[in-house]
Amino acid sequence: MTPDRIVIRVGETESVIWLGRGVLEDAARFLVSPSGRYLLVSSRATSAVRRGLRDILAGSLLLDLEIDDSQRMKTLEAVRAVADAAIEAGVRRDDAFLAVGGGVVTDVVGFAAAIVLRGVAWNAVPTTITGMADAAIGGKTGVDHPLGKNLLGAFHPPRAILVDPAAATTLPDRDYRSGLVEALKGAWIGDAELSARAEARVDAILARDQDALFDLVGGAARVKAEFVTSDPIEQGPRRLLNFGHTLGHAFEAAAGYRDLRHGEAVAWGIAAALEISRERAGLSVKDAARVRSVLARLGPFPAPVRSPETLRPLLSRDKKATARGLAGVLLETVGRARVEEDVPLDEWLAAAQRVELD
Amino acid sequence: MTPDRIVIRVGETESVIWLGRGVLEDAARFLVSPSGRYLLVSSRATSAVRRGLRDILAGSLLLDLEIDDSQRMKTLEAVRAVADAAIEAGVRRDDAFLAVGGGVVTDVVGFAAAIVLRGVAWNAVPTTITGMADAAIGGKTGVDHPLGKNLLGAFHPPRAILVDPAAATTLPDRDYRSGLVEALKGAWIGDAELSARAEARVDAILARDQDALFDLVGGAARVKAEFVTSDPIEQGPRRLLNFGHTLGHAFEAAAGYRDLRHGEAVAWGIAAALEISRERAGLSVKDAARVRSVLARLGPFPAPVRSPETLRPLLSRDKKATARGLAGVLLETVGRARVEEDVPLDEWLAAAQRVELD
Repeated sequence: MTPDRIVIRVGETESVIWLGRGVLEDAARFLVSPSGRYLLVSSRATSAVRRGLRDILAGSLLLDLEIDDSQRMKTLEAVRAVADAAIEAGVRRDDAFLAVGGGVVTDVVGFAAAIVLRGVAWNAVPTTITGMADAAIGGKTGVDHPLGKNLLGAFHPPRAILVDPAAATTLPDRDYRSGLVEALKGAWIGDAELSARAEARVDAILARDQDALFDLVGGAARVKAEFVTSDPIEQGPRRLLNFGHTLGHAFEAAAGYRDLRHGEAVAWGIAAALEISRERAGLSVKDAARVRSVLARLGPFPAPVRSPETLRPLLSRDKKATARGLAGVLLETVGRARVEEDVPLDEWLAAAQRVELD
Repeated sequence: MTPDRIVIRVGETESVIWLGRGVLEDAARFLVSPSGRYLLVSSRATSAVRRGLRDILAGSLLLDLEIDDSQRMKTLEAVRAVADAAIEAGVRRDDAFLAVGGGVVTDVVGFAAAIVLRGVAWNAVPTTITGMADAAIGGKTGVDHPLGKNLLGAFHPPRAILVDPAAATTLPDRDYRSGLVEALKGAWIGDAELSARAEARVDAILARDQDALFDLVGGAARVKAEFVTSDPIEQGPRRLLNFGHTLGHAFEAAAGYRDLRHGEAVAWGIAAALEISRERAGLSVKDAARVRSVLARLGPFPAPVRSPETLRPLLSRDKKATARGLAGVLLETVGRARVEEDVPLDEWLAAAQRVELD
């Protein structure tokens, strides 16, 4: 099967997404390393994919490192450990990293690639739904700080992103379901037809039907690629990708990055943003119900912390906070979103307090 | 007095160097912060300059932090400490850092500015000769690693660089003299007339005559600005700025970043590169003697470690090392240099062994 090829231009860097079944078996054709040498960094959870890549790249591997893929390891220390291992292995400017895993691994490795020798190339093989549809695409890398998510990082796009649904077949159910939230988000903000197809096939997707899954993930990757290409520095359409993330990040932090998966927190964040979208963006009752119903079928998700006392300081520290409030991404209709500047904190907090998914 | 204004374009960023006496008194006119707020980070050694800037920016300072300016503090931990302080102070994307100090401070603060919130603006007020002529210009930021110099870093140019000779008046003699090496390097690789003027006025420069010093420092800054603008990603002329640095970095590492100042190590590195330039680049006896004589008048400098056993592994780990050797910057004549690819390690080691400055 010939894979789909999506090109993303971010500044002077060109990223290519290769989408298709069998892409991983042909990885050597798609990965990019100026020297031909690779520094493989993978999560422990991806042993089958890693073994396959290791066999394919045998003889070209300068490093073969396993790291922890849990959200709590998305730290500057983890970046440093990857950088140290690369330097000890003798990394040169024309070598390339290869990150295999979920969003934590691609963020940590992408950030390490950004700062080792002031920047070397990297490639991403996302093994989670979130990674395939969203996290590995677009060049934002980052790690968390005790005071907030992604407060340290760099823009450093991967040269190649290999998306093969085969990499997701062994995902635990909870990770699979929460990952679908980011993929659906892409559909809802940017592609009405994709949204309708996914909605009609939620059961097949949940049953891990490869065609249905691939249609959704590939479509979401396309939406993200389009937004990122048209807006590399995040002044315009790219901001729409934050749909559900303003409260989502606060829910995630309030849960100590432990009791809620990122996608679960975003699901609650989307549900709350639907309320604000009803009031401020003319979202119809019917469209809000459609989105909420799909989210409910992915769940049930653990309940978020709703108290304003906990959420207010977390929202105030958001990178996008201003004195007047917090910009929000609002849905106008399924498939189309817009940014609303300076939505008052109290409105966010009220939406969080009454959010439900059922 | 109207300051000189030199514009450097690196990718999409514009850096402006303001050169002149009194620039610091008018700092508010030249510094750049989109929000108007500044995060001041300065070295302990710069108290007079810092006090002046603090008075000028009173009310706009989000942070006022002192850090250690010694070479051994040019680490990722120091970057992290600056980033932590900025995040705790509530830094936003439209705020700007202001680094006041030598090359260590501008490197650490510039790197922190590159990774905080994936990049905020910064300004540099160099207070050393090296910083004025070289380190603060061009956008390379970086920190050292136990295995080598500047192995971690980012390209992140400051928005404004304020060069005021008044900032250098209280420098200790050894720092002043070693700093002159980088300024002279700029003259030797790129400006024959500036070299001749500096050579004729070495005594005045050493006596801290402000006009003679400013002519040299401003001229070197111009050479660097020109090379950087024409070659933002260091494929061509920018590489010439490494004149003396290949062995210089090895000498510095061999001295544990303690027994030799950076400029002193570079002086030895230049002296050794003169030997290779004689053999490979047609440098005349007379020109080599001119350069060596000026360096000798800045010294005497502590002797470097010359043993091949110590230097070989340090050179092999150079970012620019290939299987065939190490690229070197060779002087063709005073005022003109070129890059020679793949100079064999043995040639570097032989030049290091016989290097003398007197």
